[in-house]
Amino acid sequence: MRITVWNEYLHERTEEAVRKIYPEGIHNCIKDFLEKNGFSDVRTATLDEPEHGLTQEVLDNTDVLFWWGHMRHHMVSDEVVQRVYERVQDGMGLIVLHSGHESKLFKKLMGTNSGQLRWRECGETEIMWNIRPDHPILQGIGANVVIPHEETYGELFHIPDPDELLMISWFSGGEVFRSAMTFHRGSGRIFYFKPGHETYPIYYMPEVQKILCNAVKWAYNPDAPKIKFGYCPEPPVSEL
Amino acid sequence: MRITVWNEYLHERTEEAVRKIYPEGIHNCIKDFLEKNGFSDVRTATLDEPEHGLTQEVLDNTDVLFWWGHMRHHMVSDEVVQRVYERVQDGMGLIVLHSGHESKLFKKLMGTNSGQLRWRECGETEIMWNIRPDHPILQGIGANVVIPHEETYGELFHIPDPDELLMISWFSGGEVFRSAMTFHRGSGRIFYFKPGHETYPIYYMPEVQKILCNAVKWAYNPDAPKIKFGYCPEPPVSEL
Amino acid sequence: MRITVWNEYLHERTEEAVRKIYPEGIHNCIKDFLEKNGFSDVRTATLDEPEHGLTQEVLDNTDVLFWWGHMRHHMVSDEVVQRVYERVQDGMGLIVLHSGHESKLFKKLMGTNSGQLRWRECGETEIMWNIRPDHPILQGIGANVVIPHEETYGELFHIPDPDELLMISWFSGGEVFRSAMTFHRGSGRIFYFKPGHETYPIYYMPEVQKILCNAVKWAYNPDAPKIKFGYCPEPPVSEL
Amino acid sequence: MRITVWNEYLHERTEEAVRKIYPEGIHNCIKDFLEKNGFSDVRTATLDEPEHGLTQEVLDNTDVLFWWGHMRHHMVSDEVVQRVYERVQDGMGLIVLHSGHESKLFKKLMGTNSGQLRWRECGETEIMWNIRPDHPILQGIGANVVIPHEETYGELFHIPDPDELLMISWFSGGEVFRSAMTFHRGSGRIFYFKPGHETYPIYYMPEVQKILCNAVKWAYNPDAPKIKFGYCPEPPVSEL
Repeated sequence: MRITVWNEYLHERTEEAVRKIYPEGIHNCIKDFLEKNGFSDVRTATLDEPEHGLTQEVLDNTDVLFWWGHMRHHMVSDEVVQRVYERVQDGMGLIVLHSGHESKLFKKLMGTNSGQLRWRECGETEIMWNIRPDHPILQGIGANVVIPHEETYGELFHIPDPDELLMISWFSGGEVFRSAMTFHRGSGRIFYFKPGHETYPIYYMPEVQKILCNAVKWAYNPDAPKIKFGYCPEPPVSEL
Repeated sequence: MRITVWNEYLHERTEEAVRKIYPEGIHNCIKDFLEKNGFSDVRTATLDEPEHGLTQEVLDNTDVLFWWGHMRHHMVSDEVVQRVYERVQDGMGLIVLHSGHESKLFKKLMGTNSGQLRWRECGETEIMWNIRPDHPILQGIGANVVIPHEETYGELFHIPDPDELLMISWFSGGEVFRSAMTFHRGSGRIFYFKPGHETYPIYYMPEVQKILCNAVKWAYNPDAPKIKFGYCPEPPVSEL
Repeated sequence: MRITVWNEYLHERTEEAVRKIYPEGIHNCIKDFLEKNGFSDVRTATLDEPEHGLTQEVLDNTDVLFWWGHMRHHMVSDEVVQRVYERVQDGMGLIVLHSGHESKLFKKLMGTNSGQLRWRECGETEIMWNIRPDHPILQGIGANVVIPHEETYGELFHIPDPDELLMISWFSGGEVFRSAMTFHRGSGRIFYFKPGHETYPIYYMPEVQKILCNAVKWAYNPDAPKIKFGYCPEPPVSEL
Repeated sequence: MRITVWNEYLHERTEEAVRKIYPEGIHNCIKDFLEKNGFSDVRTATLDEPEHGLTQEVLDNTDVLFWWGHMRHHMVSDEVVQRVYERVQDGMGLIVLHSGHESKLFKKLMGTNSGQLRWRECGETEIMWNIRPDHPILQGIGANVVIPHEETYGELFHIPDPDELLMISWFSGGEVFRSAMTFHRGSGRIFYFKPGHETYPIYYMPEVQKILCNAVKWAYNPDAPKIKFGYCPEPPVSEL
């Protein structure tokens, strides 16, 4: 299971408060806990690398891709977005984190203006309620996960209905948010997970790590049939 | 459009505080606002009437049925439940209110133990967030509806995934709840709406009345094909 | 209810067999039956007009847009596609017909390579089975609609799960296809309807016309809240 | 992974043609191929055993239950149905085969008259089309599965919308059918799979066996939280 963790990697280099939490960047924090949980083939990629670190070769050798971006969505090239988009359709799993909801990639996969939602940065408490305890991604998770301080996201989140709504978040300021959801596009499985603002140590929380490790296993789909792109005549069934 | 409003009609007769809010019973409050909104054929039915007021004739002449029950679910006869259940499958609209989630009827339609959820009576604030502003039932409703004091319901609500999740509620004590949802069963359209604890004047709120009037129009389906019950052989398509 | 019927309008001018069926173009056939069914404000637009006939003003004055395209999807400008896409998110209804599944617009709304499917042109019989007789779009439609000769479309149709699957088609050559479906994107309601190959007189069939008239009423959503595009901070709930 | 295969076990004892195909009963055919595929703890149970072989102890020690019934649904006791229903809600996986759609158990889980559908016994060809190649249950399955001779089932199948529609079947006589679907109820995962009429050797087909083996793994959910039955007050979140 080959995993690539992508990060725009800005805040950790420019803001002291964030650097203290993630001195090696959010991507390396995620890489670390994945490795501690037994995933042995984890690499990272960041915006400033050539082709943002997401060459065709890297993507062809990635089974599950994590995506964390926030302030530099506009700097991701359309060519790389198209390349990742096509790999998702062909079966690469995708885990979109937090403000990745506003990335070109996620909007292209949703078919909506998914950047649109309410938000507020004031360290409110978030309680994530588990509404699908039967689901593989929530195995080992109890009735809820409490995050002491988080950026607030609120509905209306402009997305199509998810395939599966797994968790709904409560915020102390009055909002709710669909915060853990699955989608599929082509042969690719997509998990959107809301938590992870850069100013709080959320990716160190055991329950968050548990959910993300479960999500990697869920999204892994190496035998997915490839989707042909472009014009596609097909033979009659009698020639099958 | 022929509407019947059913109520177990207990609290309004036995508790002074409730009688003050609904002196003629919750059913008559609902009847009143429906009539003020132009629905001219509204009748009521209550538990203590013969056959709970839901004879076959009444049901055959009902297009949309409201259901409010709380403490006396067990006193509703299985025969009447079966009769209502069959009429729903045949296309009668059904609007289940508040603690009706625990009725025999709703559990039978859900196929789950939908009586199961978290709850607490302490007058918390409920904010209902609109996540489907495109939906006919929410026409004229803004980003949210604030209910100053309500009984708290919290997830996990043991229901199948709804056809459409329209609103998610926030409660000041920390819970969230899927509070406005649609389902279909056979030819019948079902709307579950969470608000309406008997100790608060919730059915007098203009926004609540607006949603319920919209829901009646949405659930109305007089041309629905009837569902045959029992064993059902069918002819080959060539005989159509 | 202001309706615009868009057509790429190619086959009807270049192929004699098609001209015989639709001498004024598919768009005018649709316009005609809509008017006969009581829709009084129907206009048409075609690819060769300036801005493909879909100026901002036309779109701002359109409540429901029909889309028929086939061989010239690539000639529709990205600017017009973006303009229509944004109007859909803002609540304009959209009815995508037949090979419109491969249009830039539909692919952008789906977030998938929805151009991908099996197909075959040999005049097979299509039987469309009604699996949601409770749905407003299928009011007045029986158990199935038989189309004597149609182009065959077959699964796998690369789309996200629809909100509602209304009809499934059977083809004499062995394929099945999800042929009538709803989606919502932002505040816009979308209906995809498979039939309508240009070489068969399908839009003259009463049942097809009935479904499309129902779909116009279903998609009409004039009070839809507008979706803001771009970056969107929101106030705390306490300022509501 | 402890599996129990339940069968009403009638046709194999009373009809010579069926006995030839399944001399030890359908249940033992399923048991055999499961064991050949590495499932080591498989038992069987049949209608005529005490409590139909489904005592509380058997169910408490079953992770995934297969259900095949046809002519004797009415002979299954309500008490056993309730017991199985509760175990499903508590997380036992359930695989309902073929005419099990009309069992008391399945109807109770669906909340509809799911016995209702079109059917015809004349050995038509069934082509099952794979519309979710990304799904774990269809791993290793190609674009379709062809069953040379099967009983025909046709829509309208009176079920709630499934969580996931995995396959749609085509029949040579003109029908279509949703033939592989998932549902969840409480913590239990349910898979309905249409093929398996007793007069054809369908459970010997490698592709059918592959799908059912995949389904067992998918339905296995041993850590599912138990659902409480009955009246259920809950503490405030502050006591969590």
